[in-house]
Amino acid sequence: MKAAKLENRHAFLTEMPIPKPEENEALIKISTAGICTTDIEILHGYAGFSGIAGHEFAGTVEKAPSFPELEGKRATADINCGCGKCKWCSSGDARHCRDRSVIGIRGRNGAFAEYLCVPVKNIHLIPESVEDYRAVFAEPLAAALEITQQVHIKNTHRIAVLGDGKMGLLTALALRHHCENLLLAGRHPEKLAVVSGKGIDTILLEPSDSTGAAGSRPDPFDIVVEATGSPEGIQDALAMVRAEGTVIAKTTSHRRSQIDLCEVVVNEIHILGSRCGDINLALRYLENGLVDVDLLVEKIYPFSDFTEAFDHACRKGSLKVLLDMNRP
Amino acid sequence: MKAAKLENRHAFLTEMPIPKPEENEALIKISTAGICTTDIEILHGYAGFSGIAGHEFAGTVEKAPSFPELEGKRATADINCGCGKCKWCSSGDARHCRDRSVIGIRGRNGAFAEYLCVPVKNIHLIPESVEDYRAVFAEPLAAALEITQQVHIKNTHRIAVLGDGKMGLLTALALRHHCENLLLAGRHPEKLAVVSGKGIDTILLEPSDSTGAAGSRPDPFDIVVEATGSPEGIQDALAMVRAEGTVIAKTTSHRRSQIDLCEVVVNEIHILGSRCGDINLALRYLENGLVDVDLLVEKIYPFSDFTEAFDHACRKGSLKVLLDMNRP
Repeated sequence: MKAAKLENRHAFLTEMPIPKPEENEALIKISTAGICTTDIEILHGYAGFSGIAGHEFAGTVEKAPSFPELEGKRATADINCGCGKCKWCSSGDARHCRDRSVIGIRGRNGAFAEYLCVPVKNIHLIPESVEDYRAVFAEPLAAALEITQQVHIKNTHRIAVLGDGKMGLLTALALRHHCENLLLAGRHPEKLAVVSGKGIDTILLEPSDSTGAAGSRPDPFDIVVEATGSPEGIQDALAMVRAEGTVIAKTTSHRRSQIDLCEVVVNEIHILGSRCGDINLALRYLENGLVDVDLLVEKIYPFSDFTEAFDHACRKGSLKVLLDMNRP
Repeated sequence: MKAAKLENRHAFLTEMPIPKPEENEALIKISTAGICTTDIEILHGYAGFSGIAGHEFAGTVEKAPSFPELEGKRATADINCGCGKCKWCSSGDARHCRDRSVIGIRGRNGAFAEYLCVPVKNIHLIPESVEDYRAVFAEPLAAALEITQQVHIKNTHRIAVLGDGKMGLLTALALRHHCENLLLAGRHPEKLAVVSGKGIDTILLEPSDSTGAAGSRPDPFDIVVEATGSPEGIQDALAMVRAEGTVIAKTTSHRRSQIDLCEVVVNEIHILGSRCGDINLALRYLENGLVDVDLLVEKIYPFSDFTEAFDHACRKGSLKVLLDMNRP
């Protein structure tokens, strides 16, 4: 099969044997995959991963030795594959299993390939009305919705999303259903325009003015979601949040952040890390049209143009670049 | 009156006029004051404060123009003096009022003096059985107990307190009543020995091994209190906490911290800043002998030896240095 690898800071296509599913696994024929900022971070050394990346995908179950009823069904999957034995896995949540592998991120190949094996218990069937290229968004949308499951958001809260990249836009579109006072703060007028007409306030930050959103808005926010993708973003988020407020940290960077911990202590701020969420919930959002992910699709490339697609995704300011595996 | 100032990185005694209480203030004759790590940070530039520092104190109300019934009563006080009008102050909690002054820290003189004016509404009367030098601990003990009011601590939790300085020891002694599985991790055998026999496990960290507590204890903790006083402590605390666990940040330093935000995000860790607490609750703990603060007293100096006392408090590893104002 054709597969794309990230190795030694290079992204390239290669040929590999089709993987064979273990007893409790399913072989999925990938139809569409999405390139995530995490993949770009991986290319730069994040998570120490090399191999086939890709953790946003949709496809069709080709083989499931122990679960033949799944064959032919359209599916995506939870990316965290747990040990099955620890306290986390026993509770049904493998996201924090210490021995987990993570599809396309840690110890397990990902979806930038024609075929992928995943544990059957990770599979989520895609609702009939959700097209594959939209189902690819289930993983990042679940990560955005994770915030709503970690924090008690009230409609009276004032929430700011900092960063108008893919995650920032998706988070704003998702949180809009949970809060009417929602501001998206970013540096790209064309990206802020993506959410126009969606009931989301936007503010354009000046490049030189890292705390612009705080400066021009004297009232600090109850909740600030840091989704800038930059290790500097957290300090800007801290400048925007009220005392006893919450900063949700979404950025995973291979670089460290500098923070003024003193402000965190004196103002008793919560910083809450937020990662993967509930794929099932995200599929329900997609099924019911709660988030229009079409707004976020920048371009769909045939898989044979993987290198070009990855270069495109790496460009500052690009939205979601998708790979169509059925056009190899 | 005799007063001690922190100015231009110098701590020195001087003569000042006795302050006059405003209508809603009381004049307190200070009997005992404590030197806090924050005072030492102030000397090094923290909070941009210069003047009479000191925010841990006990004394007797000398004059209270509008509340004569207070005169002659022993008292300490909340250090946050709010505007009285904002949302915070209206809720009775001035700790986060944006226009607040803070006794001996921000826009208001402190207790390193023979007399101090404080707003009457900040006053807490000292229970008869609590001696003044013990009541001085009400402020730092309230800060330790603040943790118990911010976080739902269960007796089944495993808690680590990182740092065996004054705040770390006091926090361990206070949290002991809330949790049986409590570990104090520090670098000073003689200070870890302070809590021996108090039902608190201790572990000596090697100077070279910043994550010693994590390394030698494979099970991460549910809650880690960072009370090292060093901006590097937070990263060590993050290495000790479990996924979805909580790091309580207590250190206020004039230097910034570097953190691996990625770990926070991937492991969905809470970082929670924690500052001043409920003086009344702390006085109840002292009245009922729940925390033996005598263990923490390093030396009591006459106020006339302020410079020597401050130098002593600045020495690495020193416990609480107190000032006896009745021996001027």
